[in-house]
Amino acid sequence: MSERTGASTVALENAVSISSFAAVGGKKEGEGPYGSCFDYIDTDDYFGQSSFEEAESAMQGLALQNALEKRKLAKNELSFLIGGDLLDQCIGTSFGTKSFGIPFLGIYGACSTMSEALLLASLLVDSGAGKYVGAITSSHFCTAERQYRFPLEYGGQRTPTSQWTATASGALLVERDYGPPYVRAVTVGKIEDMGITDANNMGAAMAPAAYSTVSRFFADTGLSPTAFDAIVTGDLGNVGSRILIDLFERDGVDIKSRHLDCGRMIFDQKTQDVHAGGSGCGCAASMLCGHFLKEIKAGSYRNILFAATGALLSPTSSQQGRSIPSVSHLVWISDQPKGAEL
Amino acid sequence: MSERTGASTVALENAVSISSFAAVGGKKEGEGPYGSCFDYIDTDDYFGQSSFEEAESAMQGLALQNALEKRKLAKNELSFLIGGDLLDQCIGTSFGTKSFGIPFLGIYGACSTMSEALLLASLLVDSGAGKYVGAITSSHFCTAERQYRFPLEYGGQRTPTSQWTATASGALLVERDYGPPYVRAVTVGKIEDMGITDANNMGAAMAPAAYSTVSRFFADTGLSPTAFDAIVTGDLGNVGSRILIDLFERDGVDIKSRHLDCGRMIFDQKTQDVHAGGSGCGCAASMLCGHFLKEIKAGSYRNILFAATGALLSPTSSQQGRSIPSVSHLVWISDQPKGAEL
Repeated sequence: MSERTGASTVALENAVSISSFAAVGGKKEGEGPYGSCFDYIDTDDYFGQSSFEEAESAMQGLALQNALEKRKLAKNELSFLIGGDLLDQCIGTSFGTKSFGIPFLGIYGACSTMSEALLLASLLVDSGAGKYVGAITSSHFCTAERQYRFPLEYGGQRTPTSQWTATASGALLVERDYGPPYVRAVTVGKIEDMGITDANNMGAAMAPAAYSTVSRFFADTGLSPTAFDAIVTGDLGNVGSRILIDLFERDGVDIKSRHLDCGRMIFDQKTQDVHAGGSGCGCAASMLCGHFLKEIKAGSYRNILFAATGALLSPTSSQQGRSIPSVSHLVWISDQPKGAEL
Repeated sequence: MSERTGASTVALENAVSISSFAAVGGKKEGEGPYGSCFDYIDTDDYFGQSSFEEAESAMQGLALQNALEKRKLAKNELSFLIGGDLLDQCIGTSFGTKSFGIPFLGIYGACSTMSEALLLASLLVDSGAGKYVGAITSSHFCTAERQYRFPLEYGGQRTPTSQWTATASGALLVERDYGPPYVRAVTVGKIEDMGITDANNMGAAMAPAAYSTVSRFFADTGLSPTAFDAIVTGDLGNVGSRILIDLFERDGVDIKSRHLDCGRMIFDQKTQDVHAGGSGCGCAASMLCGHFLKEIKAGSYRNILFAATGALLSPTSSQQGRSIPSVSHLVWISDQPKGAEL
């Protein structure tokens, strides 16, 4: 595997560590199977604020503060903070992080935001442009529901393919030479659009993006699924996960035995009534920062691919009858730095 | 000036060139003082599409195609494309560029988008993560007006401090060793918020962000305004430009003689009735790609600072009475690569 493997996959040249990480969630997430993995759970999803949008911002502030404290870093020691969210003009992030005063790079990747932020943070740390770089994102059921779908009070029926936006935030810090987990390579996603127009079936819209990026990573690196303990997608949910496994099966590639999807994990699908699973930037971000990174640190996983997926629709594009473009960015996270044998 | 000058200013290590650039605009922009600088002007602002949102996307496609053709590059030769826009969930960019199939990094910086995209593109090319990296953004008067303010048909009265969103797109390509213009250093902006709540006075909201970033660049590099032929801000307009000059005057720093603002330049303020000036991601992007980069190539300018400014509000945050956080990212563009004397 060369240092620069292909147009869209970049192998890092240095030992780039994810040195700290924190996850914050709402009541329902706290009651889910990974509830104990969160650093903080709010009991009424308002996080002490007076609007859901302010609550989402407060959640980001808590996650970032937690990540900084675990690493014993002051906010002014961060070179850059990279983040975004689902809200129009990404106000969850700008209002949530402005008081930290960290040089800020806003991104938009819908639910792929944590992958994109971690990817960029890793590249900036690898090149030396930044010493400590943070990545952050969030989603909130109540802000997403009223922005993308219906006012909560309306109590609309949800379709079987719909997913439940997680109320959660994840934040992490990247720097060199701090031990595992390490980021070894990243693959930047292409926008894929297979013509799905049903905004209540985002798993189907996003599966081709995950397929495109993950298969490009394998082609660029010459590696195969067996090199990884887990291939983690963001929030394809039940529908999208089946499609992704099918797409790989057509190529004769089996990923079923090691595919995990944050959207299928974050809620208990038997008892929590979330239909096709969880979703939202905060879903993959909190599962990464609350669960997967800990498992790598603890040695239960050695190598995982983290490929969060984002549906790049807006209420306006849906109302205009347009299809749903999607993107997935990939990060290879490992217990070993570059150059180590798999 | 060291290679790595400060937490938020990064001096590039290689000769990073802006190798191609193109600007596309609408009818009013074509009638403005820089109308002849655009590569393409559409006569009815629909760009052959059936909605204004699709028109904005089409504009981005035209700008990117133009930039690729000028450099004689195929779309699949680009390593990455970095872009975003003002529309909810950045649909102008995702729908406008998806057919190119270029690995895509979505960003959100409001009207600072071109600075942020160029900054990131330069860092990725400097480090070798990408060989050819594109940067793109756009704005459209008709999509912005109905999203942020009123339906066009309403014909609402505009306040004296309001600015006119430019219908324009700019696209550029970055690579190493292609001659001038070069990017020599970049400064990542911090989110500033002085408590302005009037969404019709974005110049006042954004001026402190430009001041914060430009003054940090001078502090980090030890350079002063006299080293630059022009200090170009994005779209502070008449109100914000006066505030920026005032803020520097308080420090005893004179930038008045070399300050230019794209929002004050793009329209003829005597005849085009735009009140405090132009605005929108496309304003600074098209002035950069249609005018300033050409002037550096022609030798009329040797060193400029390009600091586009973005107001990170949303209609929701305004309706909730919240203030307007703003950000400005800076790029030092020069006719000489790194290491050359000023």
